[in-house]
Order: sequence, then structure tokens, then C-alpha cells
Amino acid sequence: MSFPTETEGFQVDGPGNPPEFHRRSFKLKPVGDYDVDIKIDACGVCGSDVHTVTGGWGKQNFPLCVGHEIVGHAVRVGPKVTLVKEGQRVGVGAQVYSCGDCKQCREDNETYCQVNLINTYGSEWPGTGIISQGGLASHIRTHEHWVFPIPDALSTKTVAPMLCAGITVYSPLVRHGAGKGKKVGIVGIGGIGHFGIMFAKALGAETWAISRSRAKESEAYKLGADGFIATAEEGWEVPHRCTFDLIVNCANSSSGFDLAKYLSLMDVHGRWMSVGMPEEEGQVIKAQNLVSNGVLIGASHLGSRREMLDMLQLAASNGLEGVVEELKLGEEGLKEAMLRMKKGDVRYRFTLTGYDAVFG
Amino acid sequence: MSFPTETEGFQVDGPGNPPEFHRRSFKLKPVGDYDVDIKIDACGVCGSDVHTVTGGWGKQNFPLCVGHEIVGHAVRVGPKVTLVKEGQRVGVGAQVYSCGDCKQCREDNETYCQVNLINTYGSEWPGTGIISQGGLASHIRTHEHWVFPIPDALSTKTVAPMLCAGITVYSPLVRHGAGKGKKVGIVGIGGIGHFGIMFAKALGAETWAISRSRAKESEAYKLGADGFIATAEEGWEVPHRCTFDLIVNCANSSSGFDLAKYLSLMDVHGRWMSVGMPEEEGQVIKAQNLVSNGVLIGASHLGSRREMLDMLQLAASNGLEGVVEELKLGEEGLKEAMLRMKKGDVRYRFTLTGYDAVFG
Repeated sequence: MSFPTETEGFQVDGPGNPPEFHRRSFKLKPVGDYDVDIKIDACGVCGSDVHTVTGGWGKQNFPLCVGHEIVGHAVRVGPKVTLVKEGQRVGVGAQVYSCGDCKQCREDNETYCQVNLINTYGSEWPGTGIISQGGLASHIRTHEHWVFPIPDALSTKTVAPMLCAGITVYSPLVRHGAGKGKKVGIVGIGGIGHFGIMFAKALGAETWAISRSRAKESEAYKLGADGFIATAEEGWEVPHRCTFDLIVNCANSSSGFDLAKYLSLMDVHGRWMSVGMPEEEGQVIKAQNLVSNGVLIGASHLGSRREMLDMLQLAASNGLEGVVEELKLGEEGLKEAMLRMKKGDVRYRFTLTGYDAVFG
Repeated sequence: MSFPTETEGFQVDGPGNPPEFHRRSFKLKPVGDYDVDIKIDACGVCGSDVHTVTGGWGKQNFPLCVGHEIVGHAVRVGPKVTLVKEGQRVGVGAQVYSCGDCKQCREDNETYCQVNLINTYGSEWPGTGIISQGGLASHIRTHEHWVFPIPDALSTKTVAPMLCAGITVYSPLVRHGAGKGKKVGIVGIGGIGHFGIMFAKALGAETWAISRSRAKESEAYKLGADGFIATAEEGWEVPHRCTFDLIVNCANSSSGFDLAKYLSLMDVHGRWMSVGMPEEEGQVIKAQNLVSNGVLIGASHLGSRREMLDMLQLAASNGLEGVVEELKLGEEGLKEAMLRMKKGDVRYRFTLTGYDAVFG
């Protein structure tokens, strides 16, 4: 079995507005015994991609091929691979490696590995000088632990965004107790939030969608929401004070956000978990704001392999699929995706397809 | 059985630096069937008292008698009182009433009651126009739920500060898992923090004292610390990154505090709980700061009756007592206590005694 050293894809050479994508070849990581080579069929477009290619998150390892909601087929597997079969349809998310050996990795917290955490794009594969490259490419190679078999019931196009947007909200939901008898809120009905509503409901929680206006109200109910709160309405927080067990804040901007009001929604020791990563400066928090209900504030980073497989199974069992708009891979499709994402002009996620037409 | 309508104590008429205390009579709450009248023997001096009488916390209901670490004897009990016996030595902390009926109260979260939470001083007893008054007084009256029998093994002088400082750190310790196999840190070795070290150790946790310099190192070990971290030392955080399960921040100031470094100490989903209430503006928190370990940030408000009784029993069983300096009640003693507290010139708490000499 021969392994290639390069693949072909679309890179940006630095931040741009609009970003310019260039088709070219770049190096894959050196092959390892546990590695799986994947021929890519589709890739979702994540807010992280937009922040990265437009410079909102600052310095990155350019030139860079972004994209980390990848679905494809395993075309070669290393000799020690047991978790993935050649030919299997698989997904890759936003992380492609961790040390596997530290306390965090051993406890299913591999997305919090402190030793050797490799992002799907923009991290150096240690000791190689090679920067990891994402899914706007013909192929990707990584360790089997980070390659997830996709249940047959899920379509390639709609499952792609689950691999980052989905797991990003699924993990804090299950880690912080979403389930029967719990009142759970999802702030921000977008790429991440629309999965949050579906998953919270599927996990059995009383699920509330929390949005600025009522523009997405009927869609929120279709996604599974039991209730809807519009925060542009005077006194919106009053009937819900001290009642939520968990709110996952999926909003991608923190400007004009009256955090104290949101926190007043939480029951004693309720969890306010943020999974959006706004480009703005953070928010001022005083201990005084947290005292009246003992609320806990946190954030979350992706989810473990175990959670990823559980999420995909939950989606397959409940017929859940991402609400996606399909765009064709290529310089133009990519530019459109990034610009429209930046404006928030998408309901709720783009999936790039047409890989065969581009790469053959 | 006759119940008086007034008691005598020391009030301030407004914030002052130094504060001026005036001895005078003021109204007790109207008597209720569940009320206990307590003749006060001693009262600890809390940071809250200082913030209140020097104006750091802004507008309060003046004139006001502060003090909420109260030890005395029950001298009269209402006809329906079952939790306290006449003549019994008892304590009162920083809260004297809650509705007793809401979800929070029913779940041992009465210090988070959203309906009717009465602080020991400065709150209006509903519908009466009477402002609650604290322990720098001859007597106090309140509902039996907020009156705690003191085990014989504990001395009046050293147990007084447990009733606010102690419970303030005890509750987050037990609620957030301090115990065997857990690594727990206490930031700030002062009135609250010195109890934190004792209690974390008594609960079975590996206990680390975290202080700016090494000035209090030997005292920290005497209190029960297993280890000591001095944050003025370069690279102090490095050996402890991602290892703490719980840190209770008892520091009373947030200026010059590099929160991101402290948060890097936490293991995945570790809890960073603040119980100090600094007068400064809060700290800017970005979701990005919380992502690498999924740390949870929170605060805490006192502790339930059940926790108060458990804490007193833990102290009695383990021979734990507050490290206190005794001052005599009176205009001069009070002024000295407030000024020295403001400067941090106390190891680690003042208890005011000599009530008999003042009130007979």
C-alpha cells in the first residue's frame, strides 16, 4: 500500500476581506501506523473558518486550507487501524490529534489535552514543520481516533456541520445535565444553536430557544423548541428568572449583550455555557453578578470521540439533520460562503459539495 | 412571656472614613411564633461590615447597626419554636430570613431565596418599615431556622467568625466536591481563607494555600495546608497547570489579579469559585479564557442551615477554631476594628466581646 505525501486544496495566503482562495498542492502529515487517509466528499463552513480567513482571530499559520466539518471515505488505513475500515464513510471534526496518554486524554477529555493538541488546520504536526490543513481539499490524513464512522441514516450533506457545530453544543449539553426534568435554553439560533435545540429536545429536556427577535420563532418550534423567548421585548427575563438549569450561549457576538439579565434566568448553580467565540473583547464579570443564584459560567471545547459517536447515533435514531444550504467547492463558492457567513446570511449552515467535479 | 420592642446597639448614620458609631436604641422586628430572642455575647467583624460602614458598597439603609457573626444565648423562644431551646448557646450569621416555601428554599438553597431574602442588617422586614439590625447590639430577634445551636466544644470567641466567614467558604467547598482525592486551592489567607484551609483539609482534600508572598507560609501549614504557592514568584503557575479540581478565591481585592493564570491551574471542568466581594470593577472574561480546560467560574452566597450545622459539627469533631484577635465592644473598639480590617491588619479575624460590660 503506498501513501501519497501531498494533496490538493484551496488555501488563503493571509487574512482578507474578501478572502482569496488559491488552489494548490500542499503536504500531508507523514504517514503513521494508526493513520487513515480520507478522500473528502463534503465540508461544512464554520464560523472559525471565517474568523481565520478574515483575520478576526489574529495571527494564524498561513498559507492555510481551512474547513473542519469533513465527510468523506476512508481510502487507506494504516496497519494498526482498528476503528475504521477501508471504504467506510467517515467524518473528521475540528481536532485531529491529542497525546492520548495524559490524564485528560485518558478521561475522555482529549479535546482538553494539554500536551499535544492538534487542530484540524493551523497546528504544526510536531517535529515536522508541516502545518495541519483542513477540509477544502481532496484528502486529509489523521489518526483513527479522530475519524468517526457515519451512520447510514445520516446524509453526507446534512451531517457535515454536526462534526464541529453539532458536537460543540452536544458536549456541553450532555456534560452539564441536559435531560428529562431539566429546563434548557439555547441562545442564538444559527449554525450551532439550531443543533442545540434539536439535541436538547432529543435528550429529553424542556427546550427554550432564546433569540433577539421573533423572526426565527416558527423555525425554532420546527426544530423542536418547547418555548421561545425574544430578548428585544421589554421584561423578557421576568417570567423565567431563576428557572433554567442550563443555557448554552451559541451567539457569535457579545456586543450589546446584557449578561446580568441572562444570568438572572439561571436556577441555583445553573450553568451558563458559552460556545461561541466572539471577536470582541470579553465581558466584565463581577462576583456580585454571580451571587444571587450561584450560577456557574463556563465554556466548552468540542467533544470527545465517545460523545461524537453518541451524538451521531442520537441524530440517526431521531432523524435529526442539520439545516444546510449547499454551495459548490471552488474559489467562487468559497468566497460566497465566507462573505455570507460573515453577514450571518445563512440558515443555518453551508455545506460545500462537488468535490468530485473539482478533484476528480 | 413578654417580648420587648426595642434593643440597644451601635449604629453608623452613614458611610465614613473613619466610621462613627453611636450607641442608641432601635426597633426589633415584630415578634412571631417562630422567633427566638438572643442576648448577644460576641460578634465577629466581617469585610461586609467594613464595606458597608465605609461606603465601599454604596447606598445602604442607614442608620445601621452592622455585625453578622453573632454568638449569644436564646433568652426567649416563640410558642412554635422547636429547633432552639431557651438558654441554649446559639449563633446567627449574615442572613436572618427567607420565604421558606419557594423551590430554592425547599431544596436547601434558602440563601438563594428569590422571594423574601432578609439580610441580618440593612433589609426591611416586609411590611413593617423596620430595617434589620445586626450584632453590635444587646439583642437580636429572628426566625428559628436562622438560629444555630453551637456545639459545646467550640468557644464563643473563636466560633463567631465561622458564622459568616466560615460558612462562606464551607458551602462552596462541599457543594463543589472538596474531599478525598481532590486537589483544592484556597486563594487569600485571611478571615475567610484561613477557614478554607482548615475545612478543605478536614474534608479530606489535598489542600493548597495560594498567597501573594511567602509571609504566611508557615501559618498556612499550621492551619492544615499540604502545599503553598506564592504568586509573586515567576512561573508559579507552571507546575500546577490543569491539576486543581476546585479553587475558592477568598481574596478581597481583584486589582492586579491575572485571572487567566489562575484559571490555567484548573483541571478540566474544575471550579473557580469567588467568595470575596471586591469593591473594584469586575474582571473581563472572554469565552476564549475558559476553553482550554472548560473551567467553570462561579460565586457562592453563605450556606444553608444544614450546611451550617454540618460545619459546626466538623469544627467540633476536628478541634477547628477561628484564629481571632479579641477587641472590646464600644465606639473605640469598633473604630479600631474597622480601620484595621480596611488595612488588612488582622490575623485573621476580630471578635468583639465585652457585651456584658456595655449592656449589663
